Amino acid sequence: MKVFVTGAAGFIGSHVVDAFLADGHEVMGYDNFVTGRLEFLKSARGSERFTLIEADLEDRAKLNAAVEGRDLVIHLAANADVRFGTLHPRKDLEQNTICTWNVLEAMRLANVNRIAFSSTGSVYGEPSMFPTPEDAPFPVQTSLYGASKLAAEGLICAYAEGYGIEAHIFRFVSLLGARYTHGHVVDFYRQLRDHPDRLHVLGNGKQRKSYLHVSDCVRAMRMALEKARGKINIFNLGTDESCGVNDSIGWICSSLGVSPAITYGGGERGWIGDSPLIFLDCAKIRSLGWTPELSIRESVELTVRYLQGSGHVTA
Amino acid sequence: MKVFVTGAAGFIGSHVVDAFLADGHEVMGYDNFVTGRLEFLKSARGSERFTLIEADLEDRAKLNAAVEGRDLVIHLAANADVRFGTLHPRKDLEQNTICTWNVLEAMRLANVNRIAFSSTGSVYGEPSMFPTPEDAPFPVQTSLYGASKLAAEGLICAYAEGYGIEAHIFRFVSLLGARYTHGHVVDFYRQLRDHPDRLHVLGNGKQRKSYLHVSDCVRAMRMALEKARGKINIFNLGTDESCGVNDSIGWICSSLGVSPAITYGGGERGWIGDSPLIFLDCAKIRSLGWTPELSIRESVELTVRYLQGSGHVTA
Repeated sequence: MKVFVTGAAGFIGSHVVDAFLADGHEVMGYDNFVTGRLEFLKSARGSERFTLIEADLEDRAKLNAAVEGRDLVIHLAANADVRFGTLHPRKDLEQNTICTWNVLEAMRLANVNRIAFSSTGSVYGEPSMFPTPEDAPFPVQTSLYGASKLAAEGLICAYAEGYGIEAHIFRFVSLLGARYTHGHVVDFYRQLRDHPDRLHVLGNGKQRKSYLHVSDCVRAMRMALEKARGKINIFNLGTDESCGVNDSIGWICSSLGVSPAITYGGGERGWIGDSPLIFLDCAKIRSLGWTPELSIRESVELTVRYLQGSGHVTA
Repeated sequence: MKVFVTGAAGFIGSHVVDAFLADGHEVMGYDNFVTGRLEFLKSARGSERFTLIEADLEDRAKLNAAVEGRDLVIHLAANADVRFGTLHPRKDLEQNTICTWNVLEAMRLANVNRIAFSSTGSVYGEPSMFPTPEDAPFPVQTSLYGASKLAAEGLICAYAEGYGIEAHIFRFVSLLGARYTHGHVVDFYRQLRDHPDRLHVLGNGKQRKSYLHVSDCVRAMRMALEKARGKINIFNLGTDESCGVNDSIGWICSSLGVSPAITYGGGERGWIGDSPLIFLDCAKIRSLGWTPELSIRESVELTVRYLQGSGHVTA
């Protein structure tokens, strides 16, 4: 199969590239390297079945040409800077919504009719139901990021209906694992590396979230692509557990062997649009036979170990 | 109050303008006159409290300047050409989603913090629940039009959360009444005017839809703006009844005194992305004390009478 991966040099994208190469497929990666990192593709670039295009999804001529002849598009490129969304109100619209339209339109023009898309549990806003199933009550958006991903989902479904495209939409919890570059574990790691005696936490530390290891995530995506072949296939991807920010702080500190004094910014939310709890009902993906191999605690600890061994934690 | 109305020269917009002028408010209308009609604003233009700006929502400089100093934005401008969405795949994205962002951003820059928005029952896709309530199960989009309006709703909610804007989102069924310019009643009217002996119907004629008269709609919007003052206020707007396409054909024919031979295109849907049934649960808007004054049958008959008396049915 000829697979086209946007955001190929990102955290999730590079793992997806590796997985499809390992399976014997031909993979073309597309990345603008704004946040993607060439070293994440080190292994992939050793394969003859891998090609890499450095370009932006806003460059429609390049995108249209690249999509030509592919069998499956895995669209992962996105602005994932959720927290600072209100500081740049057009970025999510452009990079997550309009660029998804660009990808869909390239597919329509080239007659490529399968797409997998990385959406987010943030599309549920602040849900009334926990764990939250795929058909939870019609959500109200609370962040520009969530709104931009919801808009992209809507475009994908409309293209599926209107132009005969088969769509796989994955609503992720936060992911952890090797090549992890942003989120609370790296924030805490960075603080404790610089001053092991103190840690500042946004919010009140009581927020609960669910996390998934990137390897479990990629395995789930591949299983769904293989086994769920409806017109529109929507899956939550997460673990069946949640952890508090304070739990995760405990695991990070014990991994690092530190006992910092902790201060809290206060409030139920870490930032505007932050959801106090993202916890997804993953019965649907489990019904295909998938189950995560790593617990949240193991994922946090593996991520800390990766950060200790890698040169990627700068700033 | 200083009210800013986009799509002011449209079917709904011109009625909204008239209603707010009648109530003593200052109204600025904004329209690009691509589908809007100057004659719909004939009465409004006689008022000293009305100003009209002919400009496009894509002209952000003009839009930003116009929004300055307003108290309330009623954003009705949209591409409402639902049926031919798949023929121009970027139009809904541009005119309904990106232009809504332009409006929101103009409001943020000018510190205007109230918006009312015309969404649509189409955001429910093909719902599993009838009548469909505002918190129906998370919908799957079936048309570019529905997807573009859902995206606009998401942006509005994210702006409400992120920047302290008060939002009223109205999900309409199809509207009927004076100044009605497109939809099945005008299609049937036009056919029967040209050849009273025959009528061709898209789909199998068994589709059921719900309709609302524009005067009932505008009254509901004004009541919600007055009485529902939460941060985000979402209301379905429709009648508590639905009618079949064949019912409505019967009313139109008897209004016109014709008995055509009817042929059907066939299929459950009139066109790709058409929903076989839109029927909204309007208990929430009714709980504010609103109730429609006109039945669907009366609305259809009044619309036929309007079309017979007006010069707007061309082509």
